[in-house]
Amino acid sequence: MTSDSLTDLSIFFAKVEELQGHFIERLRKAVEVPSVSANAESRNDVFKMSEFLKVEMESLGIDVELKPLGTEPGTSLDLPPIILGRYGRDRQKPTILAYSHYDVQPASLSDGWDQDPWKLEITPDDKLRGRGTSDDKGPLLNWLNMIEAFQALGQDVPANLLFWFEGMEESGSTGLRAALEEEASKFVADADAVCITDTIWASSSQPSITQGLRGVLFYILSITGAKQDAHSGMFGGQISEPMTDMVSIMSSLVDSSGNILVPGILSQVSPVTVEEKSRYESLQLSEQDLDCGIGARSLHENAVDVLISRWREPSLSLHRIENAMPGAGATTCIPARINGKFSIRTVPNMEASEVDRLVQHHIKNHFKQLGSKNDLEIKCVHQSDWFFEDASHWNYQAAINATKAVWNHEPGVTCEGGSIPVALDFKQVLKKNVLLLPVGRPTDGAHSVNEKLDKINYINSIKVYGSYLAETARLWKAR
Amino acid sequence: MTSDSLTDLSIFFAKVEELQGHFIERLRKAVEVPSVSANAESRNDVFKMSEFLKVEMESLGIDVELKPLGTEPGTSLDLPPIILGRYGRDRQKPTILAYSHYDVQPASLSDGWDQDPWKLEITPDDKLRGRGTSDDKGPLLNWLNMIEAFQALGQDVPANLLFWFEGMEESGSTGLRAALEEEASKFVADADAVCITDTIWASSSQPSITQGLRGVLFYILSITGAKQDAHSGMFGGQISEPMTDMVSIMSSLVDSSGNILVPGILSQVSPVTVEEKSRYESLQLSEQDLDCGIGARSLHENAVDVLISRWREPSLSLHRIENAMPGAGATTCIPARINGKFSIRTVPNMEASEVDRLVQHHIKNHFKQLGSKNDLEIKCVHQSDWFFEDASHWNYQAAINATKAVWNHEPGVTCEGGSIPVALDFKQVLKKNVLLLPVGRPTDGAHSVNEKLDKINYINSIKVYGSYLAETARLWKAR
Repeated sequence: MTSDSLTDLSIFFAKVEELQGHFIERLRKAVEVPSVSANAESRNDVFKMSEFLKVEMESLGIDVELKPLGTEPGTSLDLPPIILGRYGRDRQKPTILAYSHYDVQPASLSDGWDQDPWKLEITPDDKLRGRGTSDDKGPLLNWLNMIEAFQALGQDVPANLLFWFEGMEESGSTGLRAALEEEASKFVADADAVCITDTIWASSSQPSITQGLRGVLFYILSITGAKQDAHSGMFGGQISEPMTDMVSIMSSLVDSSGNILVPGILSQVSPVTVEEKSRYESLQLSEQDLDCGIGARSLHENAVDVLISRWREPSLSLHRIENAMPGAGATTCIPARINGKFSIRTVPNMEASEVDRLVQHHIKNHFKQLGSKNDLEIKCVHQSDWFFEDASHWNYQAAINATKAVWNHEPGVTCEGGSIPVALDFKQVLKKNVLLLPVGRPTDGAHSVNEKLDKINYINSIKVYGSYLAETARLWKAR
Repeated sequence: MTSDSLTDLSIFFAKVEELQGHFIERLRKAVEVPSVSANAESRNDVFKMSEFLKVEMESLGIDVELKPLGTEPGTSLDLPPIILGRYGRDRQKPTILAYSHYDVQPASLSDGWDQDPWKLEITPDDKLRGRGTSDDKGPLLNWLNMIEAFQALGQDVPANLLFWFEGMEESGSTGLRAALEEEASKFVADADAVCITDTIWASSSQPSITQGLRGVLFYILSITGAKQDAHSGMFGGQISEPMTDMVSIMSSLVDSSGNILVPGILSQVSPVTVEEKSRYESLQLSEQDLDCGIGARSLHENAVDVLISRWREPSLSLHRIENAMPGAGATTCIPARINGKFSIRTVPNMEASEVDRLVQHHIKNHFKQLGSKNDLEIKCVHQSDWFFEDASHWNYQAAINATKAVWNHEPGVTCEGGSIPVALDFKQVLKKNVLLLPVGRPTDGAHSVNEKLDKINYINSIKVYGSYLAETARLWKAR
């Protein structure tokens, strides 16, 4: 970022600071609407939240349309609308499509919250605590806060904005992909780049920008022996037992050191570059950042290897083995049919179809060698590609410059081990650069009790949003 | 059996035939009491059943005592009493301790019964249908029926009888072992041999006497990694996964052909003798007898190998792998702690403590070789020895002779693959020969819908009981 653009924004930064009490009140109102998308009883509150946002947005001069998505498949329950918003139509500026979501995870005092999760509390150490503060109401409202701060200064917002605010993110983003395809040549056609703010820093102490996400292939392996469960006293030794085949197949997929044993899988993995490795080495990550308090036993000695294993290497996890017959099944039964579930996390440049081919081939081959009398079925029931964006793109460079300017700290360019389906949806449908711009920290407890957003993250992100748009405008023109 | 003793009993057989309508009415009254021991709501009916039997027994001159067992552990629910009965004190006759149980499995029309399970129906093909007909009310009442037939003839019952009728057999025989130990030097002290009628023929068309039961060692294997379940996207590849160790250990225990892979286990197995094998070859067993309708894939080509695998060879079955953390666990989680359950069925002359030592050694050794960072715990949570009686004992010979005389068919001397804990209890506490004398057939559906007992089995068993006692008296004197 040039010192020029920094100077330009110092007044904006000051205005944001000045208005912070007002912005916190806006978040307070939003937290009070328990817009939980997961259950039918609270669906009205999700709608209420969309109306609240429409009013807030329109008061700032944003053109708003609530795009209905019909009913939830298999139910008569209406899906909450996508809030489509447009602000600015200046052809001299880039148009940024901003994605956030206004639904939240369930929460109740009985889960162990220290407070009513639907009342915003400001803790003595300046954390804004309440359901949705970090995921994702705070990040969403900051787009409005940012516009309001510019308006208060009588300044134009540096880029045109399209808003795509979703109400079903915590419940599988039902209807989003179809809506996006429908709007590809309409509402979102003008977008030059996408900015998704539904992520968090990789470190609890250092800002970061998310560049990559792993993909996933999820498998269900079914092995069938008898027509019904058998008593192991009566039949043990007489009959072919599906569980024996299952553990043999599963133990042929991955070893106790986490090595994937399916031949050929690793050959598609693009090597970690020296540049990436040194970038990971410079990240400020604590033990807590790496473990997240789950007390896991790490397979790796140092932080960089941990990060590489999470972000840039595939993994294969065995999730569960379940009795697939109806009924509980006696403890001593020989299960007649069992399902095994496992998934593979993929990284650049693994091709999902090739991974699937190798996995299926390996399992069928291993099963054949067992000489089992049982039947095998294997299905890849879910498949989502990895995501990896070029951080040298103006969209990323704008975010990196903005973050550095606001936080006075070089942000890490990082990855996440899990997937964010909407990132892929926007990438695949719009074919534009998709930026993942984090607002909160890994300590926020997004899906847990006592969710919070640090006040400094809430307020500084407004500044980041403004700086980011200013930088997109500058770099977009210069591209 | 000598032709003499056969002749002696022809009048008895005729009397049994004559009284069959009366005996069926006795069974009808017993079936109408839904003495389900499994749930608290029906506990009163189990007590009602004990009272019904007390009255019936006393009307035949049997001395009856209802031995209270206190409350069910962890509840305030009274346990049903053991019905202790004594009939005859002639020191010139042997004393046979007869065991049966008066509680039954649950049953309801909604399970798929073709009739009210608590009303005895006589089908057109002469099956006595209703809950408990085969397991174990029919076999129990036959002791009373047999006494009544001798009394109707003015004849003495050929042996002294002690009755031990239990009301918790279908619910783990709670309290039985302690009661038996308490009565070892008292009520049961006089027993010369034991006769348990809670079994069925091995074949649906040929009578049999049960000589052996397999033992069982049941294991729970726990593997612990993290303190809580982890998201596989975030942590896959970074952390040590307990499931990977679990499937590796489990696949080291048994192969898809049913071979136990734990070193040393098989060396204790006493070889099947030529005599046993030829005995098994002469059994009349149908496909249905071997498969019981479960549609299993057999590991063996012919019937004798099937029988040997069930009765005379150990087996190792993997039952389930369960997430041991509270909560359902997301589908894509890495379980932090899992339990694996498996059991080993044992045969003569395997020693349980040695089997346990070998299993524990093998698993700990295999786990060590994995180099896993997780923790392993292994517990043998249930252990019950195999049971194998000498069929040349007078108690068995009496049953074999009696069965042949009544059914006009050489009975098979067979085993069962499962365990019957009370058989071992009586064996271990009394140290007398314990006979397993079947009444019903494998098609009876003892724990299933439409339980039945063939009328011919009900009536012929009365004759078998009488003949058996006559033969015990003859052989006991001649021993």
